[in-house]
Amino acid sequence: MQSVISSNIGIMGAGQLGRMLALAGYPLGNRFTFLDTTGNPSAGIGEVIVDPDNQHLADFLDKVDVVTYEFEHLPVALVRSIEQHKPVYPSSRAIEVCQNRVEEKTLFDRLGIPTPAYRVVESAEQLETAARELGCPVVAKSVTEGYDGKGQAVLKQPEQAHEAWVSIGHSQLVVEAFVDFVREVSMIAVRGRDGEVAFYPMAENQHVDGILRYSVAPLPDLDASVQQTADGYIRALLDELDYVGVLALELFQTRDGKLLANEMAPRVHNSGHWTMNGAVTSQFENHLRAVQGLPLGSTRAIAPTCMVNVIGREGDNAALLALSNTHLHRYDKTERAGRKLAHVNVVAETHAELLDKVRACQAKLPDAPPVSWSFESTL
Amino acid sequence: MQSVISSNIGIMGAGQLGRMLALAGYPLGNRFTFLDTTGNPSAGIGEVIVDPDNQHLADFLDKVDVVTYEFEHLPVALVRSIEQHKPVYPSSRAIEVCQNRVEEKTLFDRLGIPTPAYRVVESAEQLETAARELGCPVVAKSVTEGYDGKGQAVLKQPEQAHEAWVSIGHSQLVVEAFVDFVREVSMIAVRGRDGEVAFYPMAENQHVDGILRYSVAPLPDLDASVQQTADGYIRALLDELDYVGVLALELFQTRDGKLLANEMAPRVHNSGHWTMNGAVTSQFENHLRAVQGLPLGSTRAIAPTCMVNVIGREGDNAALLALSNTHLHRYDKTERAGRKLAHVNVVAETHAELLDKVRACQAKLPDAPPVSWSFESTL
Repeated sequence: MQSVISSNIGIMGAGQLGRMLALAGYPLGNRFTFLDTTGNPSAGIGEVIVDPDNQHLADFLDKVDVVTYEFEHLPVALVRSIEQHKPVYPSSRAIEVCQNRVEEKTLFDRLGIPTPAYRVVESAEQLETAARELGCPVVAKSVTEGYDGKGQAVLKQPEQAHEAWVSIGHSQLVVEAFVDFVREVSMIAVRGRDGEVAFYPMAENQHVDGILRYSVAPLPDLDASVQQTADGYIRALLDELDYVGVLALELFQTRDGKLLANEMAPRVHNSGHWTMNGAVTSQFENHLRAVQGLPLGSTRAIAPTCMVNVIGREGDNAALLALSNTHLHRYDKTERAGRKLAHVNVVAETHAELLDKVRACQAKLPDAPPVSWSFESTL
Repeated sequence: MQSVISSNIGIMGAGQLGRMLALAGYPLGNRFTFLDTTGNPSAGIGEVIVDPDNQHLADFLDKVDVVTYEFEHLPVALVRSIEQHKPVYPSSRAIEVCQNRVEEKTLFDRLGIPTPAYRVVESAEQLETAARELGCPVVAKSVTEGYDGKGQAVLKQPEQAHEAWVSIGHSQLVVEAFVDFVREVSMIAVRGRDGEVAFYPMAENQHVDGILRYSVAPLPDLDASVQQTADGYIRALLDELDYVGVLALELFQTRDGKLLANEMAPRVHNSGHWTMNGAVTSQFENHLRAVQGLPLGSTRAIAPTCMVNVIGREGDNAALLALSNTHLHRYDKTERAGRKLAHVNVVAETHAELLDKVRACQAKLPDAPPVSWSFESTL
């Protein structure tokens, strides 16, 4: 009986997600080689091949048994060419869908996954018509390269269409109606090479200025049927794409409990970082288990947990560590406005205790916005 | 508010304990430099300075802010000289005591920590006398360099004294009476730079042929007063040595519940590996918090947990990962008889369930001995 695990895992991208994948994978016996094309890797672990000019891809592929990535905005043609040499999980097909809003929404539609009302437009005139039909405000987004709020504009009136069209500067846009949502939530699920699927409990996410600040899971007020509906949506996506690895699906929950899919990401996701201390198996370990063809680990939540992002500037880390059952995850990055530097996972016995502790944590972080959970009044 | 943590931590030794310290320290933002004097490092992480001829100590010290170690059999003079340049935790004094059985037992005596009856002998004749006085069988151990059962002999009769004396070949031995113990237990505790102390729940350890095979904690049948007694013993040691970091104390528990100290180790310890998945804060993270002057994390157990050592040959890792709430920690070492290659942490809701799961785990590991817990009949 020899070990079946002997993988050197290749990761495209060398930021904090790659770093946390590696930290989860060393205990499995994995080794890691990162391919960094930015010239500015931060993983701080494993072997990093810095390759801004795409000169070292063959070296990278020689070293690794399987390839995954921490960033889906990779050229699809590049990923397809890698697939000719080494297994890539999730596949180039997943990347292709996730980096194109029209493909993504078309897939949601085809699988019966509700979304906010939307239109695809290819001119300023079509944008204006769409804004009238959907009812302002609407948000217009470039079809591709729409990472982290770039290439987007909000139209408060249809007459802003021309200005928005010019400012975004793309030939095709998706225009979305605003949703009167109660909360933003996300699903993290994982699918193995054999088709086994496991779902984490749904998390509630609080964004400020388009950046995730807090994720809390599990949700104390979540109807089991809503979780099951979300499980069904993400399972449909996973199975349709013959997906291997962790997939994240962001949704809006409306006042009547309905879920509307916003977007998905074919990778470990910031809204799943709570699983590092709040679930039996973290999203990082499960992603690695999946891409290596190993059995998936339990996705059960251990206790109410909140992930607190540390953005731009770090706080008083010693004071954070003095809070009970509070876990620091630093990314070894220098401070810079808007940069994700670390996160803190706060674990508690009850959601009421958790809220108190997260507020104590917030007080020790500069610029951390007030915590606001949809279910606060029920605690 | 800038982070107070910016340490590059130097670790003397580059085996699995150093590896697991590093894996616990990256999330705190630490970086690691290992000094390996064996020529055969296995940590597989961080920067490793291979220095079998003691040529690179200055390089090592230049790179690090604080020094700790995974192995206490270091020359005391070397550690003292390092202390002239960089803080070393635990101190050379702790190393000095822990690598000398007479110093160790003298300290136990002085602090009122009971031990098995013992004698210090300096000739074969004295050894024979000691064997008669203590009553055979007795175990004779060299005073120094007695790592992992080397330099030891069991005397079934006083007449074996001469043979034992020659086979051990040291000028001073400690002779210990055998203890009719119910179980072997260990205490893991941690003391911060400010004197704060935290105790993990006591673990029961099962050794076979002198090698640890299983550790289980917390213990369902442990009287709170026994835990308090053990806390008091280890606190006395920590305070007396002005100790910083994790200290392990191995004890015997006798039929009447009494604890007798066997030996201690000034480092993270194999019998504390269960804390990686079974406690709020692992022994590795708490050691790093201590040596950096950070607040200690909670040592509370989350759930009944058993650490299963993987020795000599690995098992069916995929099958192990298929067991629920079972966590693999591989050391990235090649197989060799008697070598610690990995451990598996099994977590369960109850001790009865835990026993079943540990037996399932054992069945997937070659050469794993039968599991035997002192409290099995009470489950």
